[in-house]
Amino acid sequence: MENSIATAAALLGVGIMLGLAAFGAAIGDGLVTGRLIEGISRQPEAKNTLFVNTLISVGLIEAMPIIALVVGFIILSAAKVL
Amino acid sequence: MENSIATAAALLGVGIMLGLAAFGAAIGDGLVTGRLIEGISRQPEAKNTLFVNTLISVGLIEAMPIIALVVGFIILSAAKVL
Amino acid sequence: MENSIATAAALLGVGIMLGLAAFGAAIGDGLVTGRLIEGISRQPEAKNTLFVNTLISVGLIEAMPIIALVVGFIILSAAKVL
Amino acid sequence: MENSIATAAALLGVGIMLGLAAFGAAIGDGLVTGRLIEGISRQPEAKNTLFVNTLISVGLIEAMPIIALVVGFIILSAAKVL
Amino acid sequence: MENSIATAAALLGVGIMLGLAAFGAAIGDGLVTGRLIEGISRQPEAKNTLFVNTLISVGLIEAMPIIALVVGFIILSAAKVL
Amino acid sequence: MENSIATAAALLGVGIMLGLAAFGAAIGDGLVTGRLIEGISRQPEAKNTLFVNTLISVGLIEAMPIIALVVGFIILSAAKVL
Amino acid sequence: MENSIATAAALLGVGIMLGLAAFGAAIGDGLVTGRLIEGISRQPEAKNTLFVNTLISVGLIEAMPIIALVVGFIILSAAKVL
Amino acid sequence: MENSIATAAALLGVGIMLGLAAFGAAIGDGLVTGRLIEGISRQPEAKNTLFVNTLISVGLIEAMPIIALVVGFIILSAAKVL
Amino acid sequence: MENSIATAAALLGVGIMLGLAAFGAAIGDGLVTGRLIEGISRQPEAKNTLFVNTLISVGLIEAMPIIALVVGFIILSAAKVL
Amino acid sequence: MENSIATAAALLGVGIMLGLAAFGAAIGDGLVTGRLIEGISRQPEAKNTLFVNTLISVGLIEAMPIIALVVGFIILSAAKVL
Amino acid sequence: MENSIATAAALLGVGIMLGLAAFGAAIGDGLVTGRLIEGISRQPEAKNTLFVNTLISVGLIEAMPIIALVVGFIILSAAKVL
Amino acid sequence: MENSIATAAALLGVGIMLGLAAFGAAIGDGLVTGRLIEGISRQPEAKNTLFVNTLISVGLIEAMPIIALVVGFIILSAAKVL
Amino acid sequence: MENSIATAAALLGVGIMLGLAAFGAAIGDGLVTGRLIEGISRQPEAKNTLFVNTLISVGLIEAMPIIALVVGFIILSAAKVL
Amino acid sequence: MENSIATAAALLGVGIMLGLAAFGAAIGDGLVTGRLIEGISRQPEAKNTLFVNTLISVGLIEAMPIIALVVGFIILSAAKVL
Repeated sequence: MENSIATAAALLGVGIMLGLAAFGAAIGDGLVTGRLIEGISRQPEAKNTLFVNTLISVGLIEAMPIIALVVGFIILSAAKVL
Repeated sequence: MENSIATAAALLGVGIMLGLAAFGAAIGDGLVTGRLIEGISRQPEAKNTLFVNTLISVGLIEAMPIIALVVGFIILSAAKVL
Repeated sequence: MENSIATAAALLGVGIMLGLAAFGAAIGDGLVTGRLIEGISRQPEAKNTLFVNTLISVGLIEAMPIIALVVGFIILSAAKVL
Repeated sequence: MENSIATAAALLGVGIMLGLAAFGAAIGDGLVTGRLIEGISRQPEAKNTLFVNTLISVGLIEAMPIIALVVGFIILSAAKVL
Repeated sequence: MENSIATAAALLGVGIMLGLAAFGAAIGDGLVTGRLIEGISRQPEAKNTLFVNTLISVGLIEAMPIIALVVGFIILSAAKVL
Repeated sequence: MENSIATAAALLGVGIMLGLAAFGAAIGDGLVTGRLIEGISRQPEAKNTLFVNTLISVGLIEAMPIIALVVGFIILSAAKVL
Repeated sequence: MENSIATAAALLGVGIMLGLAAFGAAIGDGLVTGRLIEGISRQPEAKNTLFVNTLISVGLIEAMPIIALVVGFIILSAAKVL
Repeated sequence: MENSIATAAALLGVGIMLGLAAFGAAIGDGLVTGRLIEGISRQPEAKNTLFVNTLISVGLIEAMPIIALVVGFIILSAAKVL
Repeated sequence: MENSIATAAALLGVGIMLGLAAFGAAIGDGLVTGRLIEGISRQPEAKNTLFVNTLISVGLIEAMPIIALVVGFIILSAAKVL
Repeated sequence: MENSIATAAALLGVGIMLGLAAFGAAIGDGLVTGRLIEGISRQPEAKNTLFVNTLISVGLIEAMPIIALVVGFIILSAAKVL
Repeated sequence: MENSIATAAALLGVGIMLGLAAFGAAIGDGLVTGRLIEGISRQPEAKNTLFVNTLISVGLIEAMPIIALVVGFIILSAAKVL
Repeated sequence: MENSIATAAALLGVGIMLGLAAFGAAIGDGLVTGRLIEGISRQPEAKNTLFVNTLISVGLIEAMPIIALVVGFIILSAAKVL
Repeated sequence: MENSIATAAALLGVGIMLGLAAFGAAIGDGLVTGRLIEGISRQPEAKNTLFVNTLISVGLIEAMPIIALVVGFIILSAAKVL
Repeated sequence: MENSIATAAALLGVGIMLGLAAFGAAIGDGLVTGRLIEGISRQPEAKNTLFVNTLISVGLIEAMPIIALVVGFIILSAAKVL
């Protein structure tokens, strides 16, 4: 992949892919953690349980975006950017 | 697939495909796990049941995005990126 | 289908098709499984019934996206990517 | 249809058509089956009636997308992809 | 219609037309049948009446998409695809 | 209208026109018939009155899309597709 | 208007115009007639009054789309399609 | 305005203008007349007052779309279509 | 402004401008007059006051679209269409 | 600014600018005057106060669109259209 | 900046910038002044306080659009339009 | 940066950047000041506190748009427009 | 980076990046500070606590947009604009 | 990556990627911190708990955007901008 048009497409594609992934992850995490804050303000004694589950939820939400990140790194290394 | 325009299309297509998949998976997981947090803050004693079912739900939600990921890897390997 | 512009269109088309399919499947599954979590947190004794029906629902939802996946593989094999 | 630009259009057209069809079918099925889960969690004794009607509903919803699928196969066979 | 650009336009046009039609039909049917499931879970004794009317409703909803399908077949046969 | 670019525009135009018409008709019919099902599940004795009025409503809704269909056939016959 | 690019623009313009008009008319009629069904299911004795007013309403709603239809026919006749 | 590209722009512009105007008019009329039906089903004795005011309202709503229609005819006559 | 590309831009620009203006005016008028009908059906004795104020409101809403109309005529006369 | 591409851009830019301005002004005015009608139907004795304040509000809303109008005239005069 | 493509970009850019600014300002002002009318119809004795604060609010809302206007004038003067 | 295509991109980029910034700032300010008016109409005695906090809020909201404005001026001065 | 097309892309990219960042920051700040005003109007005694937390919230919200700003400055300095 | 088209694509891609990331992060943070302010105004004694959890939530939300930022820096350094 030494020609320039494929490199250009690789960079544009990575930009769109990681932009959408970061956008979705930020919104998804915002939905979950917003309910965490709401749940703690209602029941402060359930704080630990809620917090642990929120962390696991965030881990599940971040799964696909982080895989997309890995694919992005693979494409970038193929484009000799990394 | 050695010519450059097909390689460019492959990279752009993978970018759009995985971007949409990661976006959908993050939002979908956010919907389910948000209700998990809500359910635990209401009934802390049902924590285990809710958590197991949420994990299975996340697995079902992630099914198609992960298959899309596999297709993305196939296209990338055909484009000699992997 | 050895010429390059048709291969490019095949790869872009598969990207758009599977991206939309994975996006729809993730959102659709999120709607159903979100109600599963909600239903279990209300009535823990109906857990098995709800879970089996959710699995069948997910199977029905995933029907078209998986067929789209099959079509995607067919196009990719015709484009000599697989 | 041996020329390359028509083949390219065929593949792009099939991608858009099946992508939209799979997206619509997944969302539509999600709406119906979500209400199935909701209905069962309210009235577990009406489970069989609801389930049979949901299956028929899914069949009706999937009608047009599956016809679109058939048209997609026809176009693909004309494009000598199948 | 033997020239290639018209054939390409025919295939793209059919793709957009049937994609939108299948999308609309699936969403429309989902709205009606969702209310069917809701109605049955409220009044199980009115099941037959509701079911027959839902079938007729689906028939009315599918009217235009199926006509669009017919037009799609006509265009495809003119494009010598069928 | 024997030249190819006008034929291509005719086919794309018909595709967009009938796609939008079928989409609108399916959604519009879904709104009306959804209320029919809702009305019958509330008052089963008014079934006949509601059904007749729904049929007339569907007829009115389908008016413009069917006229668009007629225009589509006219364009197609001018493009020597019919 | 014998040259081909103007004919192409005429056909595309008619397609967009009538597609939007049919889409708007179908949605608008759906809003009115949906309330007709709702009104009848509440007060069956006011059926005639409601029905007549709904017919007039549909006539008013269809005014602009039908004029757009007339303009469409004029453009088509100028493009020597009619 | 005898050259072909200006004629093409005139026809596309008229298509977009009248399509949006018809779309807006149909939706706007649908909002007003929907409330007319709702008002009559609540107070059948105020039918005449409501009907007259709805007619005037429709007249006011249709003002700009009809002026757009006139401008459309002017452009069409300049493009030697009328 | 005798060259053809500027005339084409003038016609497209007028189409977009008046289309958006007519769309906005129709929706805006629909919002106000819909509340007029609602107000009259609640308080028939305030009919005159409401009607006069609705007329003035419509006049204010139509201000900018009509100015846009004037600008449209100016551009059309410069393009030697009027 | 005698060359044709700058004139074309001027006309397209004015079209987009005034179209958006007229669209926003009409919707904004509709929001305010709709509440005027609602306020009068609730408290007819506060009619004068409400009316004066609505007029001032409309003046404030129309400020930017009218300035955009002035800029539009300046661009048109530079393009030798005025 | 005497070449024509930069002038064209300047005019298109100003059109998009001022169009969005006027659109946002009109909607933003509509939100504030709509609540002014609502507040006065509830508490006519707080009219002066509300009015003064609404004026200041409008001033704050209009800040960025007016700065955008100034930038627009600067670009126009550089493009030798002013 | 004396070549014309970079100048054109600079002007288009500034237009999009400041347009979005002004749009966001106007909507954001409208949300805050709308609640100011609502708060004053509920509790006229808290007027000073609310007003000071609204001013600070507006200052925080305007932060990024004003920085974008500064960047816009920098780009314009580099494009030799300022 | 002395060639003109890369400079043009740099300027367009910065415009889109900072425009979206300023738009998001203004809306995000508006959501938080709007709740500040609402909270103060409910509980004037908690003013200090709310204000400090709002300031910290705004700082967190502004984090990514300001980093985007820094990246923008880096690109601009590379494009020899700064 | 010394050729200009790849550099241009790199800069545009970084602009889109960081713009979407900053937009998502600002909105996501706004959702969480808005609930923080709401929670404190309800229960001032739970301020510390809520604040700490909000900080962690913001950290989780910012994860993907900051990774996107790192990828942006990598691309920029490969494009010899850093």
